[in-house]
Amino acid sequence: MKKTTIHEIAKALNIDSSTVSRALNDSDRVKAKTKKRVMDKANELGYTRNMLASNLRRNRSNTIGVVVPRISRYFFSSTIAGIEEMAYQAGYNVIICQSLEEVDRERKIISNLMANRVDGILISVSMETQDHSHLTACVENGTPLVFFDRHVAGMKHTGKVLIDDVRGGFEATEHLIQKGCQKIVHLTAPLDVEIYKNRHEGYRQALEKYNLDYDKNLVLVSKLSKADGNRLAAKILKELDGVDGIFSANDLAAIGVMDYLKSTGVKIPEDIAIAGFSNEPTSAVIEPSLTTVDQSGEEIGRLACNLLLDYFENGNTLVNDRTIMVQPKLIVRDSTKRK
Amino acid sequence: MKKTTIHEIAKALNIDSSTVSRALNDSDRVKAKTKKRVMDKANELGYTRNMLASNLRRNRSNTIGVVVPRISRYFFSSTIAGIEEMAYQAGYNVIICQSLEEVDRERKIISNLMANRVDGILISVSMETQDHSHLTACVENGTPLVFFDRHVAGMKHTGKVLIDDVRGGFEATEHLIQKGCQKIVHLTAPLDVEIYKNRHEGYRQALEKYNLDYDKNLVLVSKLSKADGNRLAAKILKELDGVDGIFSANDLAAIGVMDYLKSTGVKIPEDIAIAGFSNEPTSAVIEPSLTTVDQSGEEIGRLACNLLLDYFENGNTLVNDRTIMVQPKLIVRDSTKRK
Repeated sequence: MKKTTIHEIAKALNIDSSTVSRALNDSDRVKAKTKKRVMDKANELGYTRNMLASNLRRNRSNTIGVVVPRISRYFFSSTIAGIEEMAYQAGYNVIICQSLEEVDRERKIISNLMANRVDGILISVSMETQDHSHLTACVENGTPLVFFDRHVAGMKHTGKVLIDDVRGGFEATEHLIQKGCQKIVHLTAPLDVEIYKNRHEGYRQALEKYNLDYDKNLVLVSKLSKADGNRLAAKILKELDGVDGIFSANDLAAIGVMDYLKSTGVKIPEDIAIAGFSNEPTSAVIEPSLTTVDQSGEEIGRLACNLLLDYFENGNTLVNDRTIMVQPKLIVRDSTKRK
Repeated sequence: MKKTTIHEIAKALNIDSSTVSRALNDSDRVKAKTKKRVMDKANELGYTRNMLASNLRRNRSNTIGVVVPRISRYFFSSTIAGIEEMAYQAGYNVIICQSLEEVDRERKIISNLMANRVDGILISVSMETQDHSHLTACVENGTPLVFFDRHVAGMKHTGKVLIDDVRGGFEATEHLIQKGCQKIVHLTAPLDVEIYKNRHEGYRQALEKYNLDYDKNLVLVSKLSKADGNRLAAKILKELDGVDGIFSANDLAAIGVMDYLKSTGVKIPEDIAIAGFSNEPTSAVIEPSLTTVDQSGEEIGRLACNLLLDYFENGNTLVNDRTIMVQPKLIVRDSTKRK
């Protein structure tokens, strides 16, 4: 079906198109009676505003582009919910794209968002993103960019909303120590990924504070899948003597560890206390419930979107590399409740 | 920073804007040598394609609007992931909006999506959506509409991707009966919501097939929150004698029931067997793991998006009210493993 145009309304009322346009924009230069006639005819003909024309005039789209690794992951869907909430209030649309952790796909997405003249981009980069020329091009072309969670360290003229992962790692480890753990294993993903590097650093700092030795044999690197948790739990029981605490850099691997330990009769938290990271919904439901670090995805989404909206309104705040550091929150549950 | 225009490229090369335009569009009417000069200059000046102009010409935006009740709910974030995947392959952008279960907000969203000339809309309606004039207006104005999961029954000229909830309810209940349950409670949300009406109908049909009486005192209506599950479990133990099976229309309430029953020493599944609905990630982690019905959100998202893409390519398939019924899948876990 064809969309109704301003010209058709004008023709039907036998008046000028420019008068119709002014009436629809509620201009003072049109009489109230004419306005009403125009509005009624517009409704009758099923006219809807066309944002495309004004978008072209302004060379922008009233739209924010959001790029995440994977929409269905709980943390990212929470951030998207927070972003949409703020954007909706401010009258912006939100285009969502997922890189699926592939940098080639991320490049195409950025190029497409720019061609569509989005007003700004919020991004959590893929695990593959080392070369970030596509992001630099974006900033150089005048499209403001705000990173959240996963960022490119050292990139100029961008905003950042990050989680204080060092703090999170520190608090989880300190908590285990305070619960009497003396030999704490750390499960992590490769340490060249910023967030894991930082959680590991927090682990190291907590050991240092309480005069416990840092032993690199206790740092086990994997992809942190549930199966990795299973496998590493077996390794811990078999090869590492006297481990009484485990800090996993995500909940999934922690849950894999718990499943294996329970199947072999190891008592949690009495024999081994366990802490995870992310506060996935599953962490509250597993038995015993899992102590973890909450990242508050919705808040991070709201903050990132606000940084961009602030830039739209007030100009150059972003070019000063503004970074908001969100403090994560330790959630103490049964997997560490000893004594 | 200002975006580079075709005119600036033309001026820099001292040639005609229309030649630049043709060169950028890879036209045969421009010599290869000129094309290269234009492309090089475009890169040098940081020129990016502008989709806004061609969008306005075509009076469409190469964009699909998606409306869900809440982005962060697992089922919806899964459908969005499936939608984005298909749309990306076909070269469409996806604008995501959440109604937060409010029909007023849903109305504004639809009006905004139409003003932005989205090529089509995929929607799962809010719980409040009774009056659907905003959706009818959308279809009458020529914007194709495809419902997924939650739809408006009887609305003409739309596509639908639905889950066979009757089948899902039937299979969950039949499974409980085959495991020896004779007195099965059904937890449901208000039965004027289509999906709950259908799950309840499946429950009723299964009882009928196995010659068990349908007793309306065994059908407990709530909002199906976890707290509702807690409260209703207490009621079942106190007021209903001999209940040996529970079919909950969602996992959340089922988990609330399990928490309460476990705290009072009732054995699951020996004393009471339990089945849920939706296969939320938590259902696999709770102990005992929860038997449930899987809705495969990603597949539903892909199918809904495909229905729309099919319409874009082949025209009038949608006006025939095409409905795709997705068969849900019973996932048998420990909460019903008796004998």
